[in-house]
Amino acid sequence: MTDDPRFAKQLQFILELDKEKTILRQTHLTGYRRQENDAEHAWHMAVMACLLQEYANEPINLARTLLMILLHDVVEIDAGDTYAYDPEGVKTQREREEKAADRIFGLLPEDQAREFRDLFEEFDRGDTPEARYAHALDNFQPILLNDANDGKDWRLHQVGRQQVEKRNAHTGEGSEKIGQAVQAIIDRNVAKGNLKP
Amino acid sequence: MTDDPRFAKQLQFILELDKEKTILRQTHLTGYRRQENDAEHAWHMAVMACLLQEYANEPINLARTLLMILLHDVVEIDAGDTYAYDPEGVKTQREREEKAADRIFGLLPEDQAREFRDLFEEFDRGDTPEARYAHALDNFQPILLNDANDGKDWRLHQVGRQQVEKRNAHTGEGSEKIGQAVQAIIDRNVAKGNLKP
Repeated sequence: MTDDPRFAKQLQFILELDKEKTILRQTHLTGYRRQENDAEHAWHMAVMACLLQEYANEPINLARTLLMILLHDVVEIDAGDTYAYDPEGVKTQREREEKAADRIFGLLPEDQAREFRDLFEEFDRGDTPEARYAHALDNFQPILLNDANDGKDWRLHQVGRQQVEKRNAHTGEGSEKIGQAVQAIIDRNVAKGNLKP
Repeated sequence: MTDDPRFAKQLQFILELDKEKTILRQTHLTGYRRQENDAEHAWHMAVMACLLQEYANEPINLARTLLMILLHDVVEIDAGDTYAYDPEGVKTQREREEKAADRIFGLLPEDQAREFRDLFEEFDRGDTPEARYAHALDNFQPILLNDANDGKDWRLHQVGRQQVEKRNAHTGEGSEKIGQAVQAIIDRNVAKGNLKP
């Protein structure tokens, strides 16, 4: 398609990313139509990042945050989705995802491989304002869908209050407002019997 | 969920957007697995916008471009996807999409409704560096998938060279490099018999 090796690498990466649309998550779309995939989740989170920026605890660079969000699940093309409440899967998650990051970001020209990989690692560490805010959204987005589905996914997997609270231990560090909203959703779903007390 | 009317409106908009994941396009994923939906298309375009930024003809504000891309098909929740090569659909497209924009962006707090609507209109007019670059990507993304699928979608709809060239008349205004890549793909697919000459 092109004689330019840099552009060829970029196009190969773009085509590889297409596979992310087939990686299914445990969360269902509203209306409980079907499971959501990683690409849809990342798109939804990215719109939310723009829309809810005023609630980030610290000033953020929006473009960096968006790229971080768009890429944060790319490794699942190889490593698969690890359900947040699956303790066995979580144990091997890092190793599987590091290997995937090597391969997938390795398709890119060297400078972009480094830039994208750094952003992915930054998200993983969660130690910058952008990463903290992105993590808050990564937690909030499926909770919103799950709440809209009257907690069906939680009931299916018999998830308890403590598990969701543990998962959201740092959500308020990215956005106090979002942390409070998550807590309100948890409380309401415990009261409704959707989450085990 | 919240007593804060501003936050409540934002959350309502976020849940409404979930429907975009069910709007199917004519383009198929690589491997011809299934049709792509609007949310996946927007996510893919957004990653491409970051990755290929060096080829934009003019300097762009990346965050603005990304938000424009993330939102550019939101109106299809009401108006449906209009296939680029369906002349009847294209005739009524603007009216259907304006009405949809009124309703969907109208869910937001007034300041954000205005900001998001403006960005949507800017994309529609295509008269800024960001909008020109976003349009180039909006055209390039399905062409890349279609090419990877050996032109199956073009053959299915009996699309001809002139139709794709007309659709891409302004692609080079956003990015010369992408415009040339599109032309190379068209030429190759005509040669292979995937596009009518």
